[in-house]
Amino acid sequence: MSEQPLNLPVEAVERLHEARLFVLDVDGTLTTGAVVFVGDTESQSFDVHDGQGLVWLRRSGVQLAWISGRGSQPTRRRASELGVEHLVLKCKDKSASLREIQSQLGLSAEQTVSMGDDLPDLALAELSGFFAAPSNARPEVLERADLVTRSPGGKGAVREVCEVILRAKGGWQSIHSAAGR
Amino acid sequence: MSEQPLNLPVEAVERLHEARLFVLDVDGTLTTGAVVFVGDTESQSFDVHDGQGLVWLRRSGVQLAWISGRGSQPTRRRASELGVEHLVLKCKDKSASLREIQSQLGLSAEQTVSMGDDLPDLALAELSGFFAAPSNARPEVLERADLVTRSPGGKGAVREVCEVILRAKGGWQSIHSAAGR
Amino acid sequence: MSEQPLNLPVEAVERLHEARLFVLDVDGTLTTGAVVFVGDTESQSFDVHDGQGLVWLRRSGVQLAWISGRGSQPTRRRASELGVEHLVLKCKDKSASLREIQSQLGLSAEQTVSMGDDLPDLALAELSGFFAAPSNARPEVLERADLVTRSPGGKGAVREVCEVILRAKGGWQSIHSAAGR
Amino acid sequence: MSEQPLNLPVEAVERLHEARLFVLDVDGTLTTGAVVFVGDTESQSFDVHDGQGLVWLRRSGVQLAWISGRGSQPTRRRASELGVEHLVLKCKDKSASLREIQSQLGLSAEQTVSMGDDLPDLALAELSGFFAAPSNARPEVLERADLVTRSPGGKGAVREVCEVILRAKGGWQSIHSAAGR
Repeated sequence: MSEQPLNLPVEAVERLHEARLFVLDVDGTLTTGAVVFVGDTESQSFDVHDGQGLVWLRRSGVQLAWISGRGSQPTRRRASELGVEHLVLKCKDKSASLREIQSQLGLSAEQTVSMGDDLPDLALAELSGFFAAPSNARPEVLERADLVTRSPGGKGAVREVCEVILRAKGGWQSIHSAAGR
Repeated sequence: MSEQPLNLPVEAVERLHEARLFVLDVDGTLTTGAVVFVGDTESQSFDVHDGQGLVWLRRSGVQLAWISGRGSQPTRRRASELGVEHLVLKCKDKSASLREIQSQLGLSAEQTVSMGDDLPDLALAELSGFFAAPSNARPEVLERADLVTRSPGGKGAVREVCEVILRAKGGWQSIHSAAGR
Repeated sequence: MSEQPLNLPVEAVERLHEARLFVLDVDGTLTTGAVVFVGDTESQSFDVHDGQGLVWLRRSGVQLAWISGRGSQPTRRRASELGVEHLVLKCKDKSASLREIQSQLGLSAEQTVSMGDDLPDLALAELSGFFAAPSNARPEVLERADLVTRSPGGKGAVREVCEVILRAKGGWQSIHSAAGR
Repeated sequence: MSEQPLNLPVEAVERLHEARLFVLDVDGTLTTGAVVFVGDTESQSFDVHDGQGLVWLRRSGVQLAWISGRGSQPTRRRASELGVEHLVLKCKDKSASLREIQSQLGLSAEQTVSMGDDLPDLALAELSGFFAAPSNARPEVLERADLVTRSPGGKGAVREVCEVILRAKGGWQSIHSAAGR
């Protein structure tokens, strides 16, 4: 994707340029949607490329929030590993949770980018200036999305959005240049 | 799929409209068919979209039953998480198990929708008004199915059937409208 | 596949008709080839359709042998669950192991069907009347195979061979008829 | 691939012929890039074909090094199983780590083949005579690679590079001939 244009309307790029908060659903967005138990212990699988993108995004000054209707130790562990500032688990009302985070940070919907894959995530879209969906999101979510990634959830979809935000903010070239030189 | 017609014969939609019981095979239908052990502990992987669909279906008044020839703690755990009312594990005779559930609930074959992927699941089809199969079911099962889902087992096949039933019963629009507004 | 012809030369079907022993490599044939550790504990993933096919084959009078260069508790557990009679783990010489099993059972190469996916499994082919390979076997193994399955290892490849043997022996129709009636 | 030409420029084959050290990134190269936790315990999945190729390469006299920005017991376990001589985990500076290994072994960049999938791995490319990338590497890494494998990371990509090195060194035919005879 390095030197390719963003293929987004100018207005969308402008909103991404203003992004200060990136809000993610977990199951199906940061994961493939597999709900796995080993005996009674929950297991979850995240993507290493997604993680690298989130770390770069955080370092560029964008706050990270994960909001999940479920909750497990693997999600807690991965969020901690990546330095995710806002983690809401077993969330019953995604709309209320996001409003609380925005209020706490003094950030508006226009400064918020969110991403999700199923109908309950449409609540995040309503409170965001830009909403992305992984390629395997439910049809109603794909229709609502400002950007549908080429990758499915848990396999690089989040990385694509991280790069799109970093490019809109003008921070991608420095990350690329710093690597391997 | 939101506003698309069901692409099913009118008679099939009428049977789905009457559905009061949704009976599922587990391995290969609710899972990808992977039989996983971690050391001596069994692991199983379910799909988060399937789970969301089953919860909506249950709330709309359809009873849920899972009947499996195998049995493991992960299946017990996921069934409990989703509120599955009837769970039969290590089942030797799927026909007898389904008859018992139908008798207990006072429901007929016409009020039963079932779904499975291998030859032993044809016993469920015989006792159901409507039988669905995931895209990767065995050929003999695909031939018998009233509906073959686009998704394979463990990756959204069950969600498709949940939505088809909810649409036939007229309950889908309210779920969609409630989301994110 | 139910009523389709076998698409194998008559001579190959005749050899399958004589099969009394089915010998399988484990990693990459009965599994996808994933070598998984959870901490220090090994995990392995088998296919439920493969397992059903092996149980039917064993009941029809064909002995089952698994020969693996590696060895783990999950393999032991799955072999026990399916009633595999001959299990050789941490095998250093697949040729010697198969010769010993054949000698113990008084069976010849002509009565042996084997299946594997990597170069060390060519030793099994040399001692078998019929050799099958999963679709994702190494190129040199695919070239040597009497049958290349449509499915990859760990995702139904073994089930295909079980059905081909059962059809050649004339036992498939009764399995199909017994199901769901 | 057995008798196929290498499809690489003569000059690249000559560099592979000189290879004495094969350096690998772990997540996304030796694995699919899935970062998996079971409760608080990390899990990782390697490929059995990759492992077989690495063992053959090591026996042919090529040193193996794995350099990872992360670190887990499964990586330690698999590296030990395969006899990997140089294992660097939780690496903060891949360039420094590779320079140290090269200095310790008295080997030059020209004698080094490396492989990786994300931007931090471009540091390995700078210090290697030949750099390979799995098919699903990030676009900037694919552009830099001397060879892009047909397989993705964790599913045979490393095996392809092992075979390419062994062929360039003239050691492949003897491995093939030894198998199954």
